[in-house]
Amino acid sequence: MPPAPAVSAVRAAVRRLLDSAEAAPHLEAPVVVACSGGADSLALSAAATHVAHRRGIAVHGVIVDHDLQSGSAEVAARAAEQLDELGCDEVRTIRVEVEGAGGVEAAARRARYAALREARPHGALVLLGHTLDDQAETVLLGLGRGSGPRSVGGMRPLDGPWARPFLEVPRRTTLQACRELGLRPWQDPHNEDSRFTRVRLRTEALPLLEEVLQGGVAAALARTAEQLRDDTDALDAFADNARRRVESDGVLDAASLASEPAAVRRRVLRAWLLDRGVPELSDAHLRQSDALVGDWRGQGGHALPGNFVLRRARGTLLVEWGERVPPTG
Amino acid sequence: MPPAPAVSAVRAAVRRLLDSAEAAPHLEAPVVVACSGGADSLALSAAATHVAHRRGIAVHGVIVDHDLQSGSAEVAARAAEQLDELGCDEVRTIRVEVEGAGGVEAAARRARYAALREARPHGALVLLGHTLDDQAETVLLGLGRGSGPRSVGGMRPLDGPWARPFLEVPRRTTLQACRELGLRPWQDPHNEDSRFTRVRLRTEALPLLEEVLQGGVAAALARTAEQLRDDTDALDAFADNARRRVESDGVLDAASLASEPAAVRRRVLRAWLLDRGVPELSDAHLRQSDALVGDWRGQGGHALPGNFVLRRARGTLLVEWGERVPPTG
Repeated sequence: MPPAPAVSAVRAAVRRLLDSAEAAPHLEAPVVVACSGGADSLALSAAATHVAHRRGIAVHGVIVDHDLQSGSAEVAARAAEQLDELGCDEVRTIRVEVEGAGGVEAAARRARYAALREARPHGALVLLGHTLDDQAETVLLGLGRGSGPRSVGGMRPLDGPWARPFLEVPRRTTLQACRELGLRPWQDPHNEDSRFTRVRLRTEALPLLEEVLQGGVAAALARTAEQLRDDTDALDAFADNARRRVESDGVLDAASLASEPAAVRRRVLRAWLLDRGVPELSDAHLRQSDALVGDWRGQGGHALPGNFVLRRARGTLLVEWGERVPPTG
Repeated sequence: MPPAPAVSAVRAAVRRLLDSAEAAPHLEAPVVVACSGGADSLALSAAATHVAHRRGIAVHGVIVDHDLQSGSAEVAARAAEQLDELGCDEVRTIRVEVEGAGGVEAAARRARYAALREARPHGALVLLGHTLDDQAETVLLGLGRGSGPRSVGGMRPLDGPWARPFLEVPRRTTLQACRELGLRPWQDPHNEDSRFTRVRLRTEALPLLEEVLQGGVAAALARTAEQLRDDTDALDAFADNARRRVESDGVLDAASLASEPAAVRRRVLRAWLLDRGVPELSDAHLRQSDALVGDWRGQGGHALPGNFVLRRARGTLLVEWGERVPPTG
């Protein structure tokens, strides 16, 4: 009997991902599957063991216990048991401490990625269960915060050790696959907690948009995100080339930079200023910095975060530190 | 007494727009203001007459009567009267017939732009009242439909004869300016009619997003849109250069095109295929066409809309017409 459509779909997604990564050196190593016990990562673990084992690749299941809710150890134990039953070659539970700035969601995410990075055998891919719906939420979040094309481009299917085979798989397919396979996913109460922005995007904003725009919104957001990632990659490459052309001895040739389009100029300035030690740069900072290039009228230095000053002198741009100049606006 | 803040804001926006257009030849000519009688375009008419007259520029008010609602002639007459009172040098009402494909909204838009284009004196800018909120709706609509970075980039402040000084001005400011100036804006019942997608985005989706993301969403969408327009402009310029390099005698050099990033390749293919007469191209068509460049494995021709076929032969890409090949997928 052929597998049910949802099971085929999740397996095909893992196959495509491993095919796309074929050229990478990773595939001699095992693959790691990060599993929370939820439907997405449980379906991923099932698909990964099925596909990887047929290719002679070992699968390590890793469960991160964030210790944020009572009973989290039991949730982790049940997930570990299911990974075992699925045939993972190694199953490991890591308990982390969630702390630090930026809210619980961000802190938990940092702790989780750090634990996975540490648990990863050398050269291994780490498979993550993010779905099409997660991607749509990420894109909408980036858009709603105005954090620019890079952020609206969402998550990448393959990015360093991180691999996300399900970015085109809707969440309902992972749920269905779990049902078909007799898996018992955990329902994280955080996923229903409307104090979290992401939960409200998922449970209120996206369903309303789906209704108003007559469906297909999650897929549409993911499609636009993919185009944006391609656009961003191309512009980053053009900016790298441009920077090599205009930088020497740590300063930039202003006239040469001025011949580039604004989107490339701002990217060159961003990379160069961060390398000079400027701690953070908003789009507004970059536009003001770019005025010294694209709208040069002999103006003075431009103050940047971290007590840095960007100046134009004798046709070059240079960064100075430690002088106080009034902020320009 | 200085003008109220809302009145200052709408005037400043018109001033900035006219300053940014200063280099253009338009400013010898009058400016045209398109007025529906609604708050946005009435505030725009007021600001435009104030600012332009101080610069010795004449202002022509144009009202387009779409004849879609009973009483539309009275609405137009009241708008004309107010434009007259504001001191417009010429006021003209044009009645159009709304017809054709794609729904009433799209047809009305086409008829309106055609009428404005015709009414425009040679070299004149046509000022349009689109606000920050309109821009946010446009961006969200493009995103929700997955129509790509170009569409998510929204409207341009200056685009051919069209000028949109209010793209950073919230709708509430235009309403407030009308109140301060004693203008009596018309409330278009279409703006409340929830059968229109745009109305539901405005009255339901955007307010919910504002609440979930704790405000600033319209401004955030507009900010991202601006960055996307810069990115798109830069990539279009790179693609123009690349096309000049790889095209000769109507065919493209495949190896030379292959050295460009995917985002540039697809743009080159798009412009070239449209010039060869291919009637329409989706992102999926472009990705499949690009496989002949970026993923060449000796595959056959690729069928395109309008009975065109894209082939790779002897290192070049060429378009043929009139042959039937099975669609590739």
